[in-house]
Amino acid sequence: MPKFSDRIQNLPASPIRKLVPFADAAKARGTHVYHLNIGQPDIETPPRFFEAITEADVKVLAYSHSAGIESLRDGIADYYTRLGHPISANDVLVTTGASEALNFVLTAVLNPGDEIIVPEPFYANYISFSMGNDGVVVPVTSTIEDDFALPDIEALEAKITPRTRAILICNPGNPTGVLYPKEALEKLQAICKKHDLFLIADEVYREFAYGGHTHHSTLGLVGLEENVIVIDSISKRFSACGARIGCIVSRNQEFMGLVLKMAQARLSPPTLGQLGAAAIYDMPPSYYEGVVAEYTKRRDILTAALGEIEGVVCPQVNGAFYAMVRLPVANADDFCQWMLEEFEHEGATVMMAPGSGFYATPGQGQNEVRIAYVLQQDELAAAMRCLKAGLEAYAKTH
Amino acid sequence: MPKFSDRIQNLPASPIRKLVPFADAAKARGTHVYHLNIGQPDIETPPRFFEAITEADVKVLAYSHSAGIESLRDGIADYYTRLGHPISANDVLVTTGASEALNFVLTAVLNPGDEIIVPEPFYANYISFSMGNDGVVVPVTSTIEDDFALPDIEALEAKITPRTRAILICNPGNPTGVLYPKEALEKLQAICKKHDLFLIADEVYREFAYGGHTHHSTLGLVGLEENVIVIDSISKRFSACGARIGCIVSRNQEFMGLVLKMAQARLSPPTLGQLGAAAIYDMPPSYYEGVVAEYTKRRDILTAALGEIEGVVCPQVNGAFYAMVRLPVANADDFCQWMLEEFEHEGATVMMAPGSGFYATPGQGQNEVRIAYVLQQDELAAAMRCLKAGLEAYAKTH
Ligand SMILES: Cc1ncc(COP(=O)(O)O)c(C=O)c1O
Ligand SMILES: Cc1ncc(COP(=O)(O)O)c(C=O)c1O
Repeated sequence: MPKFSDRIQNLPASPIRKLVPFADAAKARGTHVYHLNIGQPDIETPPRFFEAITEADVKVLAYSHSAGIESLRDGIADYYTRLGHPISANDVLVTTGASEALNFVLTAVLNPGDEIIVPEPFYANYISFSMGNDGVVVPVTSTIEDDFALPDIEALEAKITPRTRAILICNPGNPTGVLYPKEALEKLQAICKKHDLFLIADEVYREFAYGGHTHHSTLGLVGLEENVIVIDSISKRFSACGARIGCIVSRNQEFMGLVLKMAQARLSPPTLGQLGAAAIYDMPPSYYEGVVAEYTKRRDILTAALGEIEGVVCPQVNGAFYAMVRLPVANADDFCQWMLEEFEHEGATVMMAPGSGFYATPGQGQNEVRIAYVLQQDELAAAMRCLKAGLEAYAKTH
Repeated sequence: MPKFSDRIQNLPASPIRKLVPFADAAKARGTHVYHLNIGQPDIETPPRFFEAITEADVKVLAYSHSAGIESLRDGIADYYTRLGHPISANDVLVTTGASEALNFVLTAVLNPGDEIIVPEPFYANYISFSMGNDGVVVPVTSTIEDDFALPDIEALEAKITPRTRAILICNPGNPTGVLYPKEALEKLQAICKKHDLFLIADEVYREFAYGGHTHHSTLGLVGLEENVIVIDSISKRFSACGARIGCIVSRNQEFMGLVLKMAQARLSPPTLGQLGAAAIYDMPPSYYEGVVAEYTKRRDILTAALGEIEGVVCPQVNGAFYAMVRLPVANADDFCQWMLEEFEHEGATVMMAPGSGFYATPGQGQNEVRIAYVLQQDELAAAMRCLKAGLEAYAKTH
């Protein structure tokens, strides 16, 4: 058989998917599975999204401009301008989800063997996209004791080598729920400036900030315009994951010109998703307020319930819809599998993502799990009761 | 400013897009532009595509399975089975267009510096996707005198080095319109087997075969199942370019497993496009017959008109909807630009893709253009009259 590339052979399996067969088996046994493992929101996509597609009454479903349809790029630029970051449509390139945006950016920034510094735990696919471009993720560890705040900037700076090309942050954080204060961003600004690095900010959870906390975008870092690259998406913001619409935002015009060449090679982002997205990018503040109110309640249910389980550590969670939680178990991989294979409480069990897959440092996260709170409030409460019972039963047998 | 990767800096600009500013200027002057430069069909997308999306009445537009929704994968497998190539849904992975399929396959096959042999002229983005994966396209030249038939297999074999990982063909050919006979495929089979190479076949134009000629798929190469990777798409087949739905087909299950990891990293192909595609993959033979009848007429108009222009060489065109044509000019880049900048006939001009961009060998294709016959028959005839007048006027001044 012909040989494969090294990069493809080394790609890790998704930390979320490896338990899927066990979940399927549980369902086949008739056990209900609470899915706390994936970031698929259950909120309705704004109906306007679908209406706009119907109204467009497309006859020939053609390629769009490779950088995205004009009305969408304008709508995105207006959205950022309303947020206090005046940009133009030229600073926006529409992509097939934040996923493609990440891949484009890493292709544009990493030569084989180049390094990218990423605070861990991080969105697991950062590893896949880096390895897909023969790059190396250099982790700098944030800790649950610190609520996964940005690691000491000295620790981060110590990781910089001549091969370092960028720092990649996720803010608000998946899997941590961390929201970086302005000062953290300013520290990053200083070292990106000093070492001439790109600052890539995955801000797909921007609107999900709770408890009066504010999200600060890297677009607000005055003087860092050439270095800042923002990754964005409608997947979570508008509960439109299947639309596959995201974007890259940067005021570095040379960078945007280079990325456009990649965008032209793949011709066009999905046209229908763009038509829908263009119609909802001007959602009023009340839309976001409603969503944030709902997720705040869910977060509160989650953290209160976890606070009552003996031995569980739940850090402060201010954004996104995830929490990285320490459990009183030695091996969360084993526990998560056990919950699906052997446990059931009131006819149900819980599926979570084992923590180790969100770290690049071997051995980290072994007693942590990522919990996504994308369930209705009563379901979430039931899932927490189930988790509590599971931990008790597991402790007795392990 | 931080540095970019070498690969991104070296990406070529699209041979089709560099004339766009001149076309825009012509339009701004009020000149009608016949677009023979891009492969965007003007045929209606089957209405069933849109109906299926409406009927699905989606409330939460969720990610699909990373390999594609089941009904679509089944539909694709059935389609191939009807064509005489029995495959299962496990042999199919749905991608965001053939573009993503190509990128996935090259990521999976090429280490940095590895080589892929491609008969030229070829679909220009093969270069972009190869370079995006730090691979090297090694061209083997086919000639207009030979109707762009597969080059001598000895010439092709002579290009094989220890770094060669695959041969990539496009059949039916963009930009050539060539349709490879069974014998050509069998020659490729023999050397892929002998040298343990992947045979990647871009068959997105499979259904566009004219004049009683038959398309032979690489899926029919018995004994080469581990080596054959087919790239496919609904873009042209169903005139649904904006849906962004394509697929990878291979019976090499280890390969499919590796590609699935990449697919999981980018989460999901577009969900709406998949819903539409799943509903039209069982189009009856009459659908294809109608489309082929229309393109056959267009091809006949094109080749007849070109045959009447002094000094023009139009090879035999049996498939796809392109022709690579030799013009009586020294520099087709200059001529194509001149047509847009300085020429007009009955209020119109013609936009074509200069040929050099479809070759990797420097100096090749300088007096060739690619013409896409994706216009209504009367428009196409008018465009040919315009081209004839343009060539006459150009000859007088150059
Ligand atoms: C942090 C982060 N970035 C990017 C993505 C990819 O999102 P998209 O659906 O836009 O590709 C996700 C999806 O879960 C995510 O959590
Ligand atoms: C030969 C060939 N392969 C692949 C593609 C990409 O098609 P898709 O729209 O499916 O990405 C095209 C589009 O023109 C093409 O001509």
